[in-house]
Amino acid sequence: MNTMLTLRFDGTHYHGWQPQKEFATVCGTVKAALEKTLGRTVTLHGCGRTDAGVHAEVYAANFRGECSIPHERLPFAINSRLPRDIAVLSAKPVPDDFHAINSCMRKQYTYRVYTSRMRDPLREGRALHWPRPLDIGRMRGAARDFTGTHDFACVRTMGTPVKSTVRTLYAFDIEETGGLVEFTMRANGFLYNMARALAGTLLWVSEGKVADIPALIASGDRAAAGPVLPAHGLYMTGVWYA
Amino acid sequence: MNTMLTLRFDGTHYHGWQPQKEFATVCGTVKAALEKTLGRTVTLHGCGRTDAGVHAEVYAANFRGECSIPHERLPFAINSRLPRDIAVLSAKPVPDDFHAINSCMRKQYTYRVYTSRMRDPLREGRALHWPRPLDIGRMRGAARDFTGTHDFACVRTMGTPVKSTVRTLYAFDIEETGGLVEFTMRANGFLYNMARALAGTLLWVSEGKVADIPALIASGDRAAAGPVLPAHGLYMTGVWYA
Repeated sequence: MNTMLTLRFDGTHYHGWQPQKEFATVCGTVKAALEKTLGRTVTLHGCGRTDAGVHAEVYAANFRGECSIPHERLPFAINSRLPRDIAVLSAKPVPDDFHAINSCMRKQYTYRVYTSRMRDPLREGRALHWPRPLDIGRMRGAARDFTGTHDFACVRTMGTPVKSTVRTLYAFDIEETGGLVEFTMRANGFLYNMARALAGTLLWVSEGKVADIPALIASGDRAAAGPVLPAHGLYMTGVWYA
Repeated sequence: MNTMLTLRFDGTHYHGWQPQKEFATVCGTVKAALEKTLGRTVTLHGCGRTDAGVHAEVYAANFRGECSIPHERLPFAINSRLPRDIAVLSAKPVPDDFHAINSCMRKQYTYRVYTSRMRDPLREGRALHWPRPLDIGRMRGAARDFTGTHDFACVRTMGTPVKSTVRTLYAFDIEETGGLVEFTMRANGFLYNMARALAGTLLWVSEGKVADIPALIASGDRAAAGPVLPAHGLYMTGVWYA
C-alpha cells in the first residue's frame, strides 16, 4: 500500500523539510508522529525540501507499507501527536508508483509582502515588511516577461547540482489587498531559491533597479537579478500530480 | 504636554496590558522602551486592561510630560526598542485632560473563529478552532437581539466591582469569509469577559443550546449564557474618543 498525506505547517520553528540530526524538521516531526501512530518505522517522502522558515498551506508526502488505521481517521490520529504548528489535512491511498517528489507535475509558491510604513506585529513572521509603496503595474509587466519556458539561471542560487536550469513558469500573478501584496508562481519545478529570487527581482523592478527581464534571463547573471527574500514570506500553496 | 500613542500587538506572549511584577505585560514592555527613548520615567495609561493572550489591531495609550522627540519620529524611536510582537503605529499631541481610558467613548472588539474540520497551523493562536459549521443566520438574529442598551449581567464574569452592568452595544456584526467567522462588537464599554462571553453565547445559539436572547438578558443569569471563549481569538479592533 502507498499513502499520500497532505500537510499544512507554520515553518517558523523548523529547519525545513529534510531530516537533520541537530535540528527539528517538518519531516522528522511528522515521521515521529506517524511511526508512533502506526507502531512501525516509516520512510516519508516529501514533495520538495523547502528551506528553513518557509511555510506551507499545502504540502504533499507519501509513505509505503501497511496502514493499520483507516485513511479517513489517520489525520486525526497523527494530529493528536503533532505540535500545533503542523497538521495533516488528509490521507488517501495512491498507486504503488506514486512518489511525492518524482511524480510531481507542478508546484505553486506564494510570496507575501506588506507595505505599511510601520512594521505589523500581527504579520510578523508571516510576510515580509517592505515599508514603501510597490509599483504593481510595473511588477506585473516583469512577471509576464518571466512566464514561459526559460533558462532561470539568473534567479538560481548555486550549490545543488542540477541537470538543467530550464524550467517552465506557467503563471506569475500579483494580487494586492489591503496593503498585502501576494506574488504567486506556478511552475513545473523550482530551482534552489528561485521563488524567493523571483519575488526579490520584482521588488527590484518596482524600485527601478531592474528593468529588462528578457535581457536579464538571457544573461543568466545572478548578480543582475534581485535578492533572495527572507524565508518567512514564502508559502508553498499548491502541488499537482496530474 | 500630553501624548497619545496607538499600538498594535500580538498578545500571545503577554499577560495582558496591566503591569505585573512576575510577568511580561504590554504596558510594562512599552513603558520600558518609552522610558529608554525619552530618558525619563513615564506613567503610561492604556484604554483598557485586555486579558492575557488578547491581541490588538488598535490600542490607545497616553502619557504626560515633555516629549523630547518630535511626535512624527517617536514611533520609529520606540519601535527600535520594542520586541517584534508590539509596535507603536502613531504618536500625536492631545489636550491636557485626555486620558486613554477615562476619555474613551466607544471600543470595538472582534472575535475570530475558523470552522475547518482540521485545525489550521497557520491560524494557530490567532483564531478559535470550531470544527463544525456555524449557523450564521441564527447567530445574526441573536446578535441583533443583543444590540441596544441592556443590563449585560448575563455575559459578565464577576470579580471586578462595577457601579452598573448596563452597557450600550451599538453594533454586533458577523462576517464570514473563506471559513473564517468574525464577530465584531462595538459598545460604550465592555464588562469583564463580556466580549468573549457574547461570542461564546452566539456559538451556543448556533448549536441550539441558547435560543431566547431577550429572556436571557432579562434573567441576568450567567449560567444560562454561553462560555467565555479563549483569549487567542479576541482582538481589540477600534477605540474612539469623540
